[in-house]
Amino acid sequence: MNNDGNASKPGTAGTTARTGVWFVGARGSVATTAVAGCAAVAAGLHPPTGMVTETAPFDGTGLPPLTSLVFGGHDTVHSPLPKRAEHLTEAGVLPHGLAPAVRAELQAADEEIRLGGPLPDDPRSDEELIADFSADLTSFRVRNALARVVVVNLSSTEPVPAPDAVRLPPSSLYAAAAVRAGCPHVNFTPSTGLRTPALTEAAAARALPHAGRDGKTGQTLLRAVLAPMFVQRALTVRAWSGTNLLGGGDGAALADPAAAAAKNAGKERVLADTLGRTPQGEVHIDDVPALGDWKTAWDHIAFDGFLGTRMVLQTTWQGCDSALAAPLVLDLARLVARAHEAGLSGPLPQLGFYFKDPDGGPAGLSEQFTALLSFADRLREAP
Amino acid sequence: MNNDGNASKPGTAGTTARTGVWFVGARGSVATTAVAGCAAVAAGLHPPTGMVTETAPFDGTGLPPLTSLVFGGHDTVHSPLPKRAEHLTEAGVLPHGLAPAVRAELQAADEEIRLGGPLPDDPRSDEELIADFSADLTSFRVRNALARVVVVNLSSTEPVPAPDAVRLPPSSLYAAAAVRAGCPHVNFTPSTGLRTPALTEAAAARALPHAGRDGKTGQTLLRAVLAPMFVQRALTVRAWSGTNLLGGGDGAALADPAAAAAKNAGKERVLADTLGRTPQGEVHIDDVPALGDWKTAWDHIAFDGFLGTRMVLQTTWQGCDSALAAPLVLDLARLVARAHEAGLSGPLPQLGFYFKDPDGGPAGLSEQFTALLSFADRLREAP
Amino acid sequence: MNNDGNASKPGTAGTTARTGVWFVGARGSVATTAVAGCAAVAAGLHPPTGMVTETAPFDGTGLPPLTSLVFGGHDTVHSPLPKRAEHLTEAGVLPHGLAPAVRAELQAADEEIRLGGPLPDDPRSDEELIADFSADLTSFRVRNALARVVVVNLSSTEPVPAPDAVRLPPSSLYAAAAVRAGCPHVNFTPSTGLRTPALTEAAAARALPHAGRDGKTGQTLLRAVLAPMFVQRALTVRAWSGTNLLGGGDGAALADPAAAAAKNAGKERVLADTLGRTPQGEVHIDDVPALGDWKTAWDHIAFDGFLGTRMVLQTTWQGCDSALAAPLVLDLARLVARAHEAGLSGPLPQLGFYFKDPDGGPAGLSEQFTALLSFADRLREAP
Amino acid sequence: MNNDGNASKPGTAGTTARTGVWFVGARGSVATTAVAGCAAVAAGLHPPTGMVTETAPFDGTGLPPLTSLVFGGHDTVHSPLPKRAEHLTEAGVLPHGLAPAVRAELQAADEEIRLGGPLPDDPRSDEELIADFSADLTSFRVRNALARVVVVNLSSTEPVPAPDAVRLPPSSLYAAAAVRAGCPHVNFTPSTGLRTPALTEAAAARALPHAGRDGKTGQTLLRAVLAPMFVQRALTVRAWSGTNLLGGGDGAALADPAAAAAKNAGKERVLADTLGRTPQGEVHIDDVPALGDWKTAWDHIAFDGFLGTRMVLQTTWQGCDSALAAPLVLDLARLVARAHEAGLSGPLPQLGFYFKDPDGGPAGLSEQFTALLSFADRLREAP
Repeated sequence: MNNDGNASKPGTAGTTARTGVWFVGARGSVATTAVAGCAAVAAGLHPPTGMVTETAPFDGTGLPPLTSLVFGGHDTVHSPLPKRAEHLTEAGVLPHGLAPAVRAELQAADEEIRLGGPLPDDPRSDEELIADFSADLTSFRVRNALARVVVVNLSSTEPVPAPDAVRLPPSSLYAAAAVRAGCPHVNFTPSTGLRTPALTEAAAARALPHAGRDGKTGQTLLRAVLAPMFVQRALTVRAWSGTNLLGGGDGAALADPAAAAAKNAGKERVLADTLGRTPQGEVHIDDVPALGDWKTAWDHIAFDGFLGTRMVLQTTWQGCDSALAAPLVLDLARLVARAHEAGLSGPLPQLGFYFKDPDGGPAGLSEQFTALLSFADRLREAP
Repeated sequence: MNNDGNASKPGTAGTTARTGVWFVGARGSVATTAVAGCAAVAAGLHPPTGMVTETAPFDGTGLPPLTSLVFGGHDTVHSPLPKRAEHLTEAGVLPHGLAPAVRAELQAADEEIRLGGPLPDDPRSDEELIADFSADLTSFRVRNALARVVVVNLSSTEPVPAPDAVRLPPSSLYAAAAVRAGCPHVNFTPSTGLRTPALTEAAAARALPHAGRDGKTGQTLLRAVLAPMFVQRALTVRAWSGTNLLGGGDGAALADPAAAAAKNAGKERVLADTLGRTPQGEVHIDDVPALGDWKTAWDHIAFDGFLGTRMVLQTTWQGCDSALAAPLVLDLARLVARAHEAGLSGPLPQLGFYFKDPDGGPAGLSEQFTALLSFADRLREAP
Repeated sequence: MNNDGNASKPGTAGTTARTGVWFVGARGSVATTAVAGCAAVAAGLHPPTGMVTETAPFDGTGLPPLTSLVFGGHDTVHSPLPKRAEHLTEAGVLPHGLAPAVRAELQAADEEIRLGGPLPDDPRSDEELIADFSADLTSFRVRNALARVVVVNLSSTEPVPAPDAVRLPPSSLYAAAAVRAGCPHVNFTPSTGLRTPALTEAAAARALPHAGRDGKTGQTLLRAVLAPMFVQRALTVRAWSGTNLLGGGDGAALADPAAAAAKNAGKERVLADTLGRTPQGEVHIDDVPALGDWKTAWDHIAFDGFLGTRMVLQTTWQGCDSALAAPLVLDLARLVARAHEAGLSGPLPQLGFYFKDPDGGPAGLSEQFTALLSFADRLREAP
Repeated sequence: MNNDGNASKPGTAGTTARTGVWFVGARGSVATTAVAGCAAVAAGLHPPTGMVTETAPFDGTGLPPLTSLVFGGHDTVHSPLPKRAEHLTEAGVLPHGLAPAVRAELQAADEEIRLGGPLPDDPRSDEELIADFSADLTSFRVRNALARVVVVNLSSTEPVPAPDAVRLPPSSLYAAAAVRAGCPHVNFTPSTGLRTPALTEAAAARALPHAGRDGKTGQTLLRAVLAPMFVQRALTVRAWSGTNLLGGGDGAALADPAAAAAKNAGKERVLADTLGRTPQGEVHIDDVPALGDWKTAWDHIAFDGFLGTRMVLQTTWQGCDSALAAPLVLDLARLVARAHEAGLSGPLPQLGFYFKDPDGGPAGLSEQFTALLSFADRLREAP
C-alpha cells in the first residue's frame, strides 16, 4: 500500500478549488470521526489506514486532496463536534490527543452545521423542507466558494417506508434537496434516499452522479469475500446464520424491527446474488448499549463438501463502527466529487465495492475491487 | 453451479481413451475417498459437490470423463481399499451405503496397488527404486491400455530434507519415476516431489506438465480470500495467528516439527505474497487423534483500522480433510491429463487455485480462480 | 467416573420389581435415543457416558436398574421406533450397528405406545382426554406388572398459554392423567405440565413426587457454570447475548415466537438468579433444518474488570440434542421412581441440576451438583 | 456483590497500623495497575470490581483497609511509575484521567522501589543478594512504621531451573530474603519462589504464611469451572487444546520455551486434577506484541456424550492481563497480611481460588470459592 498521498498532489486536475462535504447526520459518530480523521491524516498525524483512495492505484486520479475538503451538514441534535470528539476518545474510538490536535477543524465544521428535520410536529411541508435544506446547501457552497458540494447521508437507518406513507422519508427529503441544489449524493445508509424513480430521474436530469446504498463495513464485507469462495470451490452452502451485537445510536435505531428489516435486506442481498439462492438461516441485529461504538458480528455457515460431508465455518468480527465507516465515507465523497467534475452522472455501479446494496455491478468483493480500479483509471484520463 | 457433467460428455476431444490416475499413498484416506467418490459421482449416486471441473465453465474442455478414470498406486501398507472405505464410513467421512455400492470399483483399484518404498532397511538404491516404480507405472498403463497416467502424490508430509541428505526424499523418487515413465505429475503435499532443479529440468525435457505444491483445503484457503480483503480495504494486518487441530495420519505426521515446518512454509507464503510482508503471529499444527479425520483451524487476525483503531477477526473452520481434498485431487488429475493431451508441458501456474505453494501466479483466490477459468478456455480450444 | 453400574446391582432395594417409564412424545428423537441407549448400555454395548446415575456416588442408592425399565408412551405420530432409530443413525445421532442390535427393545417399546392428543378437531373434552390418558397409564402398569410408572414429558415446547385459554394445555392434560393414575411426573420441557396450583396440589394430595422444568442440556448448562464464576470473581457482567441454531422438530417448534418465549424464560432465569439482575443482551433461537438434530449455541459475554476495563468471553457449544437429553431423561426417571418408592412427594428441588427452571434450589451448577449428591445419600438411607 | 467496602471499615481489628506490600517486579504492568487501582478505589473513583475481598462475605474479617496499604518493591528497570501509568493509559489498560488523579500515590510508591537483581555480571553471591534484598525489606518496614510487609512476586516467569543450577533462581533469592526479613510471601508467578524444601521449612520455622503459585486469571480460570462441569455431567473429555496469544513483557518472557513449560505445567494441572487424567491436546503460548497488554485464549474441547456422540465446546477469552491480575494481587496481599496477623503460618491451601498451581485443596473453582469463604470466617473469628 502506498500512502504517500500522491492522489492528492497539488497540480492534479481539479485540486485547486475546494470541495464541500455535507453530512446528513453531521453530529453522529461516523461524521465526527470523518472530520477529525481527515484533519489528522491531512496533517500527517496518522497514516491513511482504511482509505483506499490514498493507495497507489489512485495516484494521479485527480481526487480532491484531503486538505481541500470543507465539512458541514444537517443534524437535529446540538452537542458540538469538539465535545462529540471527546466522547469518542473516552469510548476508545479516537486515539488520545487527536481531538485537541484537530479542535480547530472540528470547530470549523461545527459552525457549518444547520438544523435538519423534519422535527417533531414540524409544521413545514415536504416542499418547504426540501427548499430549506437546498438553501442550506447553496449557502454553504457560496459562503465557502466551493467548486461543488457532495451530500453524504450518515443518519440513522429509517424504517422501511409504508406504501401509503403521506410524506417522503427524511432521507429522501435530503436527497431531493441535494438534487435541487445540484449536489452529487452518497447514501451510506439503508434508507431510501435517492432510490425512488422520481428522484433518480431528477438526478439524471441534473447530470448528477450518485452512489449507494448502505456502507459495507463488517459482516457483509466478510460475506462478500467468503460467499464467492464457496461458489468457486463448488461447495454447497446449506445455511448462513448471523448475529450482530452493536451499541451506540445505530444499535438503538436497529432495535426497531422495521429498521432492522431495511438493514437485513442489504445483508441478505450479497448472499442471494453470489450463491444464486438464499440459504437457510437468519440475521439478528441486537442493541447492546454496553458495547458502545463497538460491534461484534458472528456468522455460522453450514456447508456440504464432497459426498455431502457436513462442514462448518464460523467467523467473529469485532470492529469499531465509526472507524470502519469514516475512511469509506471520505473515499466516497472524493470519488463522487471527482466523478461530478469529470462529467459523469447517474448511479455509479463501479462503487459497489463500498456498498451492501449497490446500484448494480458484481457481488463479490474482488470483482468489485477490480471495477473500482477501472473506475480509477477512467478518472485518471478524465478532464 | 451446473453439475450436468457436460464436461465429460462423450464425443468431446480425448474422452474415448481411458486415463490412469496413480496415487502415491493409494491406501490413505484421501485416495480412498477419491476412488470411492469418483465412482459414486460417475454413477449418479451423489452430485459432484466440491469438484470445480464439473461446473459449467468446464463444459466442453475435453477433460477425461470420470467414467474413463482408472485408479492404481503405490503404498507401503496393505489394508485393502474396501476395508479402508468401511473405516471411513464409521468415521463419518463416507456416507452410509456408499462403500458397498462402489465395492467393485474399490476392489479394482486395490488390485492395481503396488508396494512402494523405500521400506525400512530397503536394500535398493535410489536408482533401483526409481526403476521399480517406473516399471510399475508403465505396466499399469500397458495392462489397462491407458492413453496416459497422471501420478498424484498424496503421501504423508515429509520432513524438510537435510541439505546433506545422502538419498533423494521418497516424494522425489516417485516423481523421478513418473518422469522416467513419461507421466504428468501432481504434488498435493508439501514434500519436495519434482521441486528440484534436476527433476524439473527432466520433466521439461520429457515435455511433461506438472502441478504443485500442497493442496489448499482449509485454513490457507480462507487466508487466500481474507488476506486480499485487508489489502483491498487498506486495513493493516498487525498479527495473524493460527492453530490447526487434526487427527488421523496427517496429524501424526505433522506432529514431527520438521514436517510441520514444511507445511507451515506454504501456509505463511499466502500471507507474505498477499500482504507484502509477514505479520506477527505463529501457526501451530497439533496432532489430536480424537478428532479422527476431522480438522479444526482457528485463526486470529489483529488489524488496525482508521486512526489505528485495533480490531479483530477470528475464524473457525471445521472440515473433513479427505472430503475437502478428494474432489480437488480428481480435478487436478483431469486437468493435468488434459494438459498433457493438449501438449502443454512444464509447471502449470494456472492451477495455483488448488495449492498453498503454487508454481507462480497470483496469491489471492479470486485471481487464481480467474486464471483457472482462462486455463479452461485454453483447454477448450486445444487439440 | 465409575461406570461399573453398581447402582443397579441386583439385591439393591427396589430392584426386583420392574419400573415403567412413560414418555409423552414417545416417538421423538429424545425418547427414541433414550430407549435405544438404555438397551445398549444395559447390554454393555456402550459405557453409560452422560448418565450421572451410573457414577460412583450413586452406588447403592437403590435406583431401578436399567435392565428393569419398561418403556411406553403417548404420541400423535405413527412412524415406528425401529424406523426412527434408523433415521437417527443416518443423522449421526445413533452409532452404526446400534439400531439393529436393540431392535427387539425398540419394537417392545413401540408396542406400548398409545395415541395421544388432543388431535385436530378432537371431540373429547379435557376431562375425557385425562380419563383416556390415565386409563392408558393404568393399563400399561397392570399389563406389565410394574411397581410404578414415571411419566416424562418430552413433547415439543408449547406456546405460553393465553390467560383466557378455554382448555388446559396438552402438557397439563398429560400431567393431570399422571396424577390421576398415581404416577410420578417429570417435565423435561418448558411447557406448563404440573405447574398449575391445582395440579401441584393434586400431586401433593396423592403423595406423588415430581420434577421439572426444562432440561438443561447446552447453552444454559454452560451459563450455570460461567455465571457463578463472574460473581465469585466480583466481575461485572454488562451484557450476555446468545444465539441458538437448531434443526429438527425442536427448531421448528421454537421458531414459533410464543414457544421461543417459553424457552427463553428458563434460559434467562439462570442469569437473573445468579447475577442478581438481568444483564443486557438477547437470546435467539433459530430454526436451521440443515443442522438436523445438532445444535450450535454461541454466547457473547461482555464484562467489566478492574477499573472498568472491558473484556469479553465467547463460547460456542456444538452438541447433539438427543444425545445430551437422553441420559438425563434416564437419570430423572430412575431418581423420581426411587423417590416415589422411598415415600418422597411433591416437587424435588434437589434435582435442579437437571433443569433450566427448577422447583427452587441454587442456580449454580456446582451447588446443584452438591444438592444432587445429598439427595443420593438420602436415597441410600431410605427404605 | 456488596462493594460498600465494609471489609475495610475503621475500627476493624488490625486496621489501625499500616501494612506494607512489596512487589518483586514493582515497575511492571501488574504492579503499576495494582498501585494505581488501589489508590483509585480507596479514593472512591472506581468501584472495586474484581476485588473479592471487597464483597460482602469479607465484611468484618479484619483485612487491612486499602487506605492502609503502603507500596514498595524491587525492580531492575528504572522507568518511574507515573510514566508507566501513562503508557498503560495509552494502551487502554488504565482509564483516562486515572493516572493524574493518583499521581501522588504512584510517586510515593516509586520512591520505595529499590534496585533488584541479580544484574548481568552481578558480582554478588546468592548470600549477598539475599542479605541486600532482606535489608531493603527491613528498612522499608522500619522507615514506614509498618505492622508487616507482604512480599508479592510479580516478576516475569523464569525458565524451569536446571537440576544442576549453581545458584538459586532469582524468585527464590527474593523469597529467601522475605523469610529472612520475617515477611509473608505470595508467588503470583509460575517461578520457583518458596517452592524448595529448604525455603518452605525456613518459612515454617519463622511462622510465616505464604501462598502460591501462578495467578489464575484467564484460560485456567475458565478451565477450573468448565472441567468440573464435564465431570459432574459424566461427559468424557477426549481432547482439550488451547492457544494463548499475548503481547507485553509476559508474552516475550513466555516465548522462551523453558518459561512456557513452567507456565503450562500449571495450566495442565487443573485438567489432570479435575478429570483424573490428562486428555489429548496441547497448550500454546504465543508472543504477539501487537496485542500489547491484552491477551486472547482460545480453547477447543472435544468430548463424548451419550453413546459416544462427539461434541465440541470452544471458548475465546479476551482480557487485559494487568486488569485481571491486579485485584487478585491486592486480595492476596490483604489476606496473607491478615493471616500473618492472625498467627497462621505455612502454605495457605485455602487460597487455591487464586492460583493455577495451589498448595493443595480442591481443583474446581466452586469448591475453591467455598474454601475461601470458610477462610474468611476463620479470619473473622481470629484475634
